[in-house]
Amino acid sequence: MVPDPPIQHQRNLQETLRQVIVLLNKQQLVSNLVKKQDSPRHELVQTLVAKQQLAELQQKLQSLHPADIAYVLEQLPLTERIMVWDLISVKRYGAILLEVSDAVRTSLIADLEHKELIHAVEHLDSDEIADLMPDLPSDMVRAVMKSLDQQDRVQVQSVMTFPEDTVGALMDFDMVTVREDVALDVVLRYLRRLGEIPNDVDKLFVVDRRGLLKGTLALNTLLVSSPEAEVVEIMHTEPVFFYTHDLIAEAARAFERYDLISAPVLNLHNQVVGKIGIDAVMDFVEERASRERLGQVGLSEDEDLFAPIWRSARNRWLWLAINLMTAFCASRVIGMFEATIVQLVALATLMPIVASVGGNTGNQTAALMIRGLALKQINGSNLRYLVFKELSIALMNGALWGSVMGLFALMLYQNTILSLVMISAMMLNLMIAALGGMFIPFTLQKMGRDPVMGSSVILTFMTDSMGFFIFLGLASVFLL
Amino acid sequence: MVPDPPIQHQRNLQETLRQVIVLLNKQQLVSNLVKKQDSPRHELVQTLVAKQQLAELQQKLQSLHPADIAYVLEQLPLTERIMVWDLISVKRYGAILLEVSDAVRTSLIADLEHKELIHAVEHLDSDEIADLMPDLPSDMVRAVMKSLDQQDRVQVQSVMTFPEDTVGALMDFDMVTVREDVALDVVLRYLRRLGEIPNDVDKLFVVDRRGLLKGTLALNTLLVSSPEAEVVEIMHTEPVFFYTHDLIAEAARAFERYDLISAPVLNLHNQVVGKIGIDAVMDFVEERASRERLGQVGLSEDEDLFAPIWRSARNRWLWLAINLMTAFCASRVIGMFEATIVQLVALATLMPIVASVGGNTGNQTAALMIRGLALKQINGSNLRYLVFKELSIALMNGALWGSVMGLFALMLYQNTILSLVMISAMMLNLMIAALGGMFIPFTLQKMGRDPVMGSSVILTFMTDSMGFFIFLGLASVFLL
Repeated sequence: MVPDPPIQHQRNLQETLRQVIVLLNKQQLVSNLVKKQDSPRHELVQTLVAKQQLAELQQKLQSLHPADIAYVLEQLPLTERIMVWDLISVKRYGAILLEVSDAVRTSLIADLEHKELIHAVEHLDSDEIADLMPDLPSDMVRAVMKSLDQQDRVQVQSVMTFPEDTVGALMDFDMVTVREDVALDVVLRYLRRLGEIPNDVDKLFVVDRRGLLKGTLALNTLLVSSPEAEVVEIMHTEPVFFYTHDLIAEAARAFERYDLISAPVLNLHNQVVGKIGIDAVMDFVEERASRERLGQVGLSEDEDLFAPIWRSARNRWLWLAINLMTAFCASRVIGMFEATIVQLVALATLMPIVASVGGNTGNQTAALMIRGLALKQINGSNLRYLVFKELSIALMNGALWGSVMGLFALMLYQNTILSLVMISAMMLNLMIAALGGMFIPFTLQKMGRDPVMGSSVILTFMTDSMGFFIFLGLASVFLL
Repeated sequence: MVPDPPIQHQRNLQETLRQVIVLLNKQQLVSNLVKKQDSPRHELVQTLVAKQQLAELQQKLQSLHPADIAYVLEQLPLTERIMVWDLISVKRYGAILLEVSDAVRTSLIADLEHKELIHAVEHLDSDEIADLMPDLPSDMVRAVMKSLDQQDRVQVQSVMTFPEDTVGALMDFDMVTVREDVALDVVLRYLRRLGEIPNDVDKLFVVDRRGLLKGTLALNTLLVSSPEAEVVEIMHTEPVFFYTHDLIAEAARAFERYDLISAPVLNLHNQVVGKIGIDAVMDFVEERASRERLGQVGLSEDEDLFAPIWRSARNRWLWLAINLMTAFCASRVIGMFEATIVQLVALATLMPIVASVGGNTGNQTAALMIRGLALKQINGSNLRYLVFKELSIALMNGALWGSVMGLFALMLYQNTILSLVMISAMMLNLMIAALGGMFIPFTLQKMGRDPVMGSSVILTFMTDSMGFFIFLGLASVFLL
């Protein structure tokens, strides 16, 4: 058996993708030629060439890291994607499935037979199998479960029971535990017997007979300590740990604050049941950032840039419908003042300015508020000061920039009262925007929702409607 | 000398903050009492109590991790902040300054004397000193530089010369290098002699006499290998490495893809000059997310929730001015059609719907595009397909939801042509929004700017102005 070529790390992924596509095209070209030719001799030569191209492509793929193959697969159209997928050895399937996006994962799993899938997950850890489960059809889930041994099955089930935003759902079982009363040379011999320590294990977990956490022993400390010492003498007795039910967001903050690489995960009885590693935390942080960015505009993270048109169109309906509804309501506010507008059409021209500036400054306040909430900087005691501060800023900036706009209005329409109405409306709407920017995220958070999603829609609805109402209302009172 | 109490990790930071504030208030209360009392006997007792309170607070602070002290300092108003700062031992100053936000750092440095600062940075690594330098007044920079030894000074200067978005600016010098031809037991003895391996060192860098990178040796592999083996036999010969001029964003992607904990940093001559660790990468990722979130609404990352009102107000001027300008331009588009609006006031009522829905769907397309650009999924070859796809979606959704709105307009105003104008304007503006959502981020990226910042402003300006123009333009052609 030929050993696998060493995995090569790619410095330029786009170049790698290009190479794969070139190989793929060559291979297709030659196979097509083979089909077209009749002469048996020609055919033989062409088949040989085709086989050579295929081997070259296969070798290239084998030298790629699973994450890089995942990238290549995500970039390819469906037909080519499956063609490449079929060239990859089944034992690497599991690792690749873990790396691809949800949408692509579904398309790859659909191409797999039960037997292949079971073979593929054989090479995965139980926490990784648990990650894949939600994307498998239910008959496959049963088949995979049946193929696991007792311990793995229990671990898979335990990870799957934890809510997806808790440490339990992200923990793994790659850990090494030791007792506190053994000498370091015994630990060293034990490790050597293990033969391999996973990449993200940077510390051993010290537990007692009942599995209770007594401390941690950093491998770096082990390396520099005298082999005669006992674990208890050099272990860290107050390590950072997490409970399975702790929120991942909290754990991520602790990883960042204390520069952790791994930490023990305990159950409610303070027994060590798993480990959480920096790679899981990092994936979480990246995913959250991407989820937030898309969530702000009402898109789910699954929305694939290359998804079919029809599915993409439908994905956007909910958001479109919500926006239409809020825009329609704001428009009805204008409808109330149609008689006023007919008498002074300048109002129609100027009203979007009041609404738009309100929305923009409100979103600034909301962004600061959301960050403050995320960093836990906001509590009952300083909220009042913050409201006072934001209102002062709104008043100040409303007066200043409202006057600038009022001046423009005066120059355009030579109507002093109109320009005074403009200034007052700007000040009032900026104050409403400030209040909305503070309280909408705050309330969403109190209601247990993510303030990043939805704040902007509600806020813009408020500043639009109120902007129109205040400006047109003031105008109908003072101008007519 | 009493040894420092062990650092305790805080499971609940807000509770910790509360405790510090309670101790702080008690201490202030007692000191105030001391000042008010005249009787010398009373005074003696009170001073004792005050001293005890002070000691308790000091002890609490000493048990906190620098990152947690940073959190506490950030939450306190200036007077209390300085009071707590003065209670912390000078040798911890450096580590805390590294953790606090820029705004708070400036306030703390302002309280320091040259001597204290030099004492504080003595305990820092040279890459950390380089991080602090930009926030120090220039006379302090000179004083600190003079206090460093030759090697540190060179390292500080080298880190400071790299642009802040490159690996060079984030690298550190906490690394251990070995030669490839030595036996592992020699390496083990060498490490033991070092006495300490930094927390984030997970691999040794194998270099030759000229400092060229030959490979890496994971500490976990070292631990499980036979001590008789030589480094060259077990080292990883194709490790991931970075050049000092590589972008941190690229390095972060590689850390995520390959689950790295540290990697060697090379200069242009392929010599190992430093290390980049997961903690620096993680800080970068978190900071980028926060910068993006605020940048979207034209705020700088420095904007402190608790900054003085006047400074906060001014911070928002640029964004306000830009928004006023774009809103003013859009308003002038309406101004062109005032005669039309006077004849059919329903136009004024309906026009914000066309503009607002356009802006919202455009921002959806832009968010997908920005993610695609960040993940390097978009290139010349698939851009054309994406444009076709987004235009199709816009046409489809424009027809569908435009009709819904057209129907509403028909019910409200009983005007068939008005409702047809509404549908056409919605379709056209959604198509413009789709094009804008694709090309604005793409162009910003091509121009070397960050598409996250600014896309939304330009896009909304476009969909507002064009929305008004198309709707009112069509109306004046077909309705009057």
